[in-house]
Amino acid sequence: MRVLIIGGCGFVGSHVVDRCLAAGLRVRVLDRAPETYRAPLPNVDYVRGDLGDHPCLADLLADADAVVHLASTTVPSSSNLDPVADISGNLVPLVRLISAMRENGPRKLVFLSSGGTVYGIPTADPVPEIHPLRPICSYGIVKAAMEHYLHMERHLHGLQVIVLRAANLYGPRQGRIGLQGVIGTYLHNLNRDRPIEVWGDGSVVRDFLHVRDIADLCHRALGASVSGCFNAGSGRGTSISELIGHIRQTVGRPVSPTHRPGRGFDVPRVVLDIAKAQATLGWTPRIGLEQGLAETWEWMCSCDAS
Amino acid sequence: MRVLIIGGCGFVGSHVVDRCLAAGLRVRVLDRAPETYRAPLPNVDYVRGDLGDHPCLADLLADADAVVHLASTTVPSSSNLDPVADISGNLVPLVRLISAMRENGPRKLVFLSSGGTVYGIPTADPVPEIHPLRPICSYGIVKAAMEHYLHMERHLHGLQVIVLRAANLYGPRQGRIGLQGVIGTYLHNLNRDRPIEVWGDGSVVRDFLHVRDIADLCHRALGASVSGCFNAGSGRGTSISELIGHIRQTVGRPVSPTHRPGRGFDVPRVVLDIAKAQATLGWTPRIGLEQGLAETWEWMCSCDAS
Repeated sequence: MRVLIIGGCGFVGSHVVDRCLAAGLRVRVLDRAPETYRAPLPNVDYVRGDLGDHPCLADLLADADAVVHLASTTVPSSSNLDPVADISGNLVPLVRLISAMRENGPRKLVFLSSGGTVYGIPTADPVPEIHPLRPICSYGIVKAAMEHYLHMERHLHGLQVIVLRAANLYGPRQGRIGLQGVIGTYLHNLNRDRPIEVWGDGSVVRDFLHVRDIADLCHRALGASVSGCFNAGSGRGTSISELIGHIRQTVGRPVSPTHRPGRGFDVPRVVLDIAKAQATLGWTPRIGLEQGLAETWEWMCSCDAS
Repeated sequence: MRVLIIGGCGFVGSHVVDRCLAAGLRVRVLDRAPETYRAPLPNVDYVRGDLGDHPCLADLLADADAVVHLASTTVPSSSNLDPVADISGNLVPLVRLISAMRENGPRKLVFLSSGGTVYGIPTADPVPEIHPLRPICSYGIVKAAMEHYLHMERHLHGLQVIVLRAANLYGPRQGRIGLQGVIGTYLHNLNRDRPIEVWGDGSVVRDFLHVRDIADLCHRALGASVSGCFNAGSGRGTSISELIGHIRQTVGRPVSPTHRPGRGFDVPRVVLDIAKAQATLGWTPRIGLEQGLAETWEWMCSCDAS
């Protein structure tokens, strides 16, 4: 199978590339920039460019058996600052991708959505995929609209599409700018002896999933013949306070966070019900939070030391 | 109350203007074009222009106590031909409107959404507002995203917003281009002795609501202090075949439709559950289908004769 991985040089993308290579797939990556934390891999065909305006997109699609779309120009906390940029940077390119795939591309797409934002403030715990979509940040609104366009394409033109609604992902190679994820930000700051900040009182509960677990799910989705939405989480909730306790054990020293006011777009608690992915795709997350934190901390120390 | 009606020269808009004037409201209209079927009204302040790029939008908002947003650049059947235009013509201007209202505008908005498309293929009959949104045409996807941005603004910044999810609207002053509604198209064609076309076998069921009934609901929404989504339909389903039977009686002669293949984006049956609008806004539709058809036919004959 020849797979085109859009956003394959990003945090999640780099692990999906690893998983696909390990499974013997032929991998081509379309991304705006090279990987941040390692050199290009010899057996990957990297194409530099933007999904929104790449002149060779049709050729790239014609040459692929499946597409994995992982690219995003925003994260939840930045999306509300400029929703128009969120729409034009993510929703419009996805609509154009669907159209280009219909013209002369593969009929299989795996799409990374956001289990942490599309449901809004959940009324179920854990949240199943049938929960209504009521996002309260632009990132979630745009992801929901992207899901809807994919659902429409499946209904009208038979695209096989698997949507993975990811929980809070973490692990090696996560960006350290403070936007991509709380675990990466905390470990990075601790490694630099900088303070860590908690928005609110630490009671916010999230579902943390190791990036290699979603890479494995992504690979399973490529091999499956179904369509649909699948939550991709650990199935377990961890409060920010509990997380800080785990991190304290991982780094082996006291951790004293600074508390800042809670943010309106932060949902109090999201834990994803992953029964559907387990039953339909035969997937289960393998890497527990303590193991994952230890590995991520080790990577960060080696990375900062080099 | 000073109300700014965006799209106030359109089919629905002209009736909302009438209802607001009758109730003694001060009415300003922002629209790209004048009304098609009648001269400007003396006691309405018409401002010509596009919501997307009007230089005086901030001033118009500062001068209003509430906004009614009825404008749309697409209809369901045209939206799928160019989803990018649908997004840039409707979603982006709405996001900018929300932002401009937050800066220096009123904190009350009534928004016309689409009960016929946002639910996709309903799994309930009639469909309540809590039904999941699974649209299968771009028009419905964009309306759902617009609703989500309004919901977010309410949650984060306290905008009072009432979303009216309209059924299939009909009545005098509906466009006759064949895009806006099946009743207007059929009556117009019959009045010109042209054939009428049915997409599919006539079993498709819709919920037809007279435009003055939704204008009344819109006015009630302006006076209400709640927020939320409200279905706006008749609460009754009518198949296209049944509709043609009613039309036959209205026009007083045989009607022989031409059948064409069904369209993939047409939902088989949508009838809206209107209990919430009845209970919360004290609204109920008053104009039955036979009465409404007779009135619309009379208007069309007088209009074509003039």
